[in-house]
Amino acid sequence: MGAEAQARDWLARLAMALERGEIPQALFRPDSHWRDLLTFTWSIATFDGPGEIGAMLTACLAQTAPSSLEIESGTCAEAGGVVEAWFGFETALLRGRGHLRLKDGLCWTLFTAAVEIKGHEERAGSRRERGVAPGVERGRLSWAEQRQREAAALGTTEQPDCLIIGGGQAGLALAARLKRLQVPTLVVDGLKRPGDAWRRRYRSLCLHDPIWANHLPYMPFPDHWPVYISKDRMGDWLESYADAMDLHVWSSTLARSASYDPTEQRWSVQVEREGVPVTLRPRQLVLATGMSGAPALPRFTGAESFRGVQCHSSAFESGAAYAGRKCVVIGSNNSAHDICADLWEHGAEVTMVQRSSTLVARAETLFRFITSRLFSEDALAAGITTERADYTAASRPFALVAELQRGLYREIRAHDAQFYARLTAAGFMLDFGEDETGLSIKYLRRGSGYYIDVGASELIASGAVALRSRVQVAGLRPQGVELSDGSILEADLIVHATGYEPMESWIASLISPEVAERVGHVWGLGSGTRLDPGPWAGELRNMWKPTRQEGLWLHGGNLQQVRFYSRILALQLQARLLGLAMPVHDPKGRG
Amino acid sequence: MGAEAQARDWLARLAMALERGEIPQALFRPDSHWRDLLTFTWSIATFDGPGEIGAMLTACLAQTAPSSLEIESGTCAEAGGVVEAWFGFETALLRGRGHLRLKDGLCWTLFTAAVEIKGHEERAGSRRERGVAPGVERGRLSWAEQRQREAAALGTTEQPDCLIIGGGQAGLALAARLKRLQVPTLVVDGLKRPGDAWRRRYRSLCLHDPIWANHLPYMPFPDHWPVYISKDRMGDWLESYADAMDLHVWSSTLARSASYDPTEQRWSVQVEREGVPVTLRPRQLVLATGMSGAPALPRFTGAESFRGVQCHSSAFESGAAYAGRKCVVIGSNNSAHDICADLWEHGAEVTMVQRSSTLVARAETLFRFITSRLFSEDALAAGITTERADYTAASRPFALVAELQRGLYREIRAHDAQFYARLTAAGFMLDFGEDETGLSIKYLRRGSGYYIDVGASELIASGAVALRSRVQVAGLRPQGVELSDGSILEADLIVHATGYEPMESWIASLISPEVAERVGHVWGLGSGTRLDPGPWAGELRNMWKPTRQEGLWLHGGNLQQVRFYSRILALQLQARLLGLAMPVHDPKGRG
Repeated sequence: MGAEAQARDWLARLAMALERGEIPQALFRPDSHWRDLLTFTWSIATFDGPGEIGAMLTACLAQTAPSSLEIESGTCAEAGGVVEAWFGFETALLRGRGHLRLKDGLCWTLFTAAVEIKGHEERAGSRRERGVAPGVERGRLSWAEQRQREAAALGTTEQPDCLIIGGGQAGLALAARLKRLQVPTLVVDGLKRPGDAWRRRYRSLCLHDPIWANHLPYMPFPDHWPVYISKDRMGDWLESYADAMDLHVWSSTLARSASYDPTEQRWSVQVEREGVPVTLRPRQLVLATGMSGAPALPRFTGAESFRGVQCHSSAFESGAAYAGRKCVVIGSNNSAHDICADLWEHGAEVTMVQRSSTLVARAETLFRFITSRLFSEDALAAGITTERADYTAASRPFALVAELQRGLYREIRAHDAQFYARLTAAGFMLDFGEDETGLSIKYLRRGSGYYIDVGASELIASGAVALRSRVQVAGLRPQGVELSDGSILEADLIVHATGYEPMESWIASLISPEVAERVGHVWGLGSGTRLDPGPWAGELRNMWKPTRQEGLWLHGGNLQQVRFYSRILALQLQARLLGLAMPVHDPKGRG
Repeated sequence: MGAEAQARDWLARLAMALERGEIPQALFRPDSHWRDLLTFTWSIATFDGPGEIGAMLTACLAQTAPSSLEIESGTCAEAGGVVEAWFGFETALLRGRGHLRLKDGLCWTLFTAAVEIKGHEERAGSRRERGVAPGVERGRLSWAEQRQREAAALGTTEQPDCLIIGGGQAGLALAARLKRLQVPTLVVDGLKRPGDAWRRRYRSLCLHDPIWANHLPYMPFPDHWPVYISKDRMGDWLESYADAMDLHVWSSTLARSASYDPTEQRWSVQVEREGVPVTLRPRQLVLATGMSGAPALPRFTGAESFRGVQCHSSAFESGAAYAGRKCVVIGSNNSAHDICADLWEHGAEVTMVQRSSTLVARAETLFRFITSRLFSEDALAAGITTERADYTAASRPFALVAELQRGLYREIRAHDAQFYARLTAAGFMLDFGEDETGLSIKYLRRGSGYYIDVGASELIASGAVALRSRVQVAGLRPQGVELSDGSILEADLIVHATGYEPMESWIASLISPEVAERVGHVWGLGSGTRLDPGPWAGELRNMWKPTRQEGLWLHGGNLQQVRFYSRILALQLQARLLGLAMPVHDPKGRG
């Protein structure tokens, strides 16, 4: 049987069983996985093996009522004994897209994802508004007047259904999706203008992923833009985006506290809008300030005695003032490297303090071995649109991604062997993840611990930037940094590139420690590796899916995740506004 | 023989003849037309019949050296005895796209259009810049710094190759194309911010063409936007567009005078930038202030005696101040109707003075019978992308468009018979073009004389807006307007919706009357109808192609024309910067 026949045959057998209300465990291999985004579970959940899959179906099949499972023509392929195909389907409430991988006629991986709620599709394309009433009427409003009226009402005389805290790419992308789904939404952000979170960072910052992976929903970057987008360009784009997407954003607005009233099923959120206190009463509250919270500033002894300038990496803007001066950067991840490079470019005498090992991968190499398969001009030429790439990336369960990445990192290390040898020779402590599974997996587990090299590693390897590794910081002294070996690094500037507090600390301070504890860890897969304690969750904990706090949602991640999962989150918020029955089945999830 | 075989056969015979240097007149019907955009002629020209076609090939074939003529697979079709197909080809310098229509095995229409200059393709997609140098270097500039440096130099220490006067959609679209073709370009505009030309118009203004026809190059409008875009939305989009496309625009900059130095082959253009005089020395000067020049204000006797407020339609902003007051709008085209409606909405007592007949077509009907064939969700669903629609629209010679439109207007008049009867009964003077060829043709001939009805016609028909027709304006009096029948219309406000001066008057005042006379008429086909004197030019006179003044170019039209012809104009400007040999063959063109 050819690939297409196998795929059609298996899907037909699955469809027949499901439509009869049977639990077809026999169609799945012992090492199978089923990843579902909302369609069966109204959550984001992966089920491992026929046992978990059977239990999920037992709980969810009746109300899901899947139907119309049909292979998308032209999507079947076979490689290395694995048959794969895309398919479309419906449930009682949703239209969905699915993907299957078969080995020896049985299912190895199954992926089912919600696309839209039937009867409540996005108002776009053929469903767009007409814009002008047919005919002239007294009292009709122009677009500008209508928009002004809406803006004046939202948050004052009318409460938003959904409040998004954080107006970076995550918040704006979600708001754009909600706008088309007609969920009244307000975004609040502490900075002056959309995009300022980017504009304020250090001058040389560019996105470390190539442009093809970074599009926002609905409005791709112009195709003459360079491969690596600079931070100012990104900031300006976000501002234009908020405008073109007709979003309501309150800038210069700080969120002070939030509490949930379970009787009214509404939040009470205290914000300060340009200094004026306002209480907002949304049903849904989305934290989209990034998966990291506030800057993490370690409490070094003697910090207050240091005579020079010190700042957290998030506050560092430029090395322009430090030509010929001594600068110490504490930390060895992305920002630390970029800031060392920026200081060196401006002629400073720079030392990096590396306290623990770091995963380094060259941007060019990552692109060549990993990213370009789905996100590149070549991928586009092969018909892999951004949307198809996103679904493809999502179709693979995390457990299998780790395996795949381990193989790729063997190739990457061989390809860049000389580069890694030089870094090691300079004293740099390298790692490739506890189990050698590389950068993406480390990112999913702990969101930190790596540098995507765009040039700073050469400065370390050549000694242009000095390195002190295998040491800790004993404390700060008036003249600089004292290390654990007793030596002192003199400094005019100390940059603490020490990362960010976990999201749960932001929940604790905004809402309450009790809610933070109930929600539990945010991010991480439960891999049982450092900073990602078990048990295995199979999915990013609490991200884009129901948490243990009614009406509280977490949104963020890199731009690719923001683009894809903003749809999944938006559909959940829309379903709640519509009052649909959505029993959540997520035994391994929720914190 | 099937459609595809016929198309392939004919194209093969054409290719063989051209490659041998033969003039294949026998392949063309007596009623044939060949429309060329640059590839053979380095101009925009249509040749009618085997005689003109033969003469063109005799003049151009040797240097054009066409090759690789190949049918684009899947583009062949047959309907009503006409076989059509798209094909690709190359010349010595260009890559081109062509379209043919055959009847009985011979060519009825041929269309050849330049797509790009070989070896000098747009820097986009796989040819985009990388953005960050691979590796850290001292003195490298961030994107923002680089852009700032470029902006500071252009027009001061470095002269633009191309200066575009007018920063509306026409100027910005052309600048966006030139940016990707690496032609150093500066746009100057008199208003404060890009988009202000739209923002300043009357509050209810919306685009009268549906959104699918109106995209700018490279950056389509978001697909949730309504069918008819409001003026403020359009203004904001143009501002974002200038930014996203990395254009250099000097706002608040008035062009005072320009003269061409044939020895240096440069213009000397005097501008006032925020009040400060600057001399610019571009090689190419593009007038993109629209195909119309300054507001045309008729000199009515007694105009200064009028005690109320009077303004040209371009200065009218809102009827908000005129509730219960008497307003007279002189004119009966688009702006006149929209302004009547706006005043009526605000409760004014409005009279329209119609001095000559007007072509009215309902927006809904135009969309249904004409625009939607190429520009609609249905067209998109049928695979007619914006680009394909543009090429299709361009593939038909103007002589045949008129015929086609006459047929469509018979259908339109039948469909809206009741609507037209009511308008006529209200005294409205209707026409459908001298030869009944409808709105698009009237637009191409004289750029005026019509209203696309979005509701005001109902106000006229119902008498909600009073109409005085079959009269002229005798003059203004202190209390209002005196008509040629001796009656007086009392008025608190008179709006002169009297159109715009022709482009040649703007050339005369900016450059010189001599240059204006040498260049001749701008716009119009030479149809020999009112306001479009002959001889037949077969193309819009002086638009997007070489004029009789070296280095002077005219750009404008509706958004669809701006999008498509900006590419044709940009390629000519790029070719001149590259110093390519481009003998222009355009015997019917040039004024």
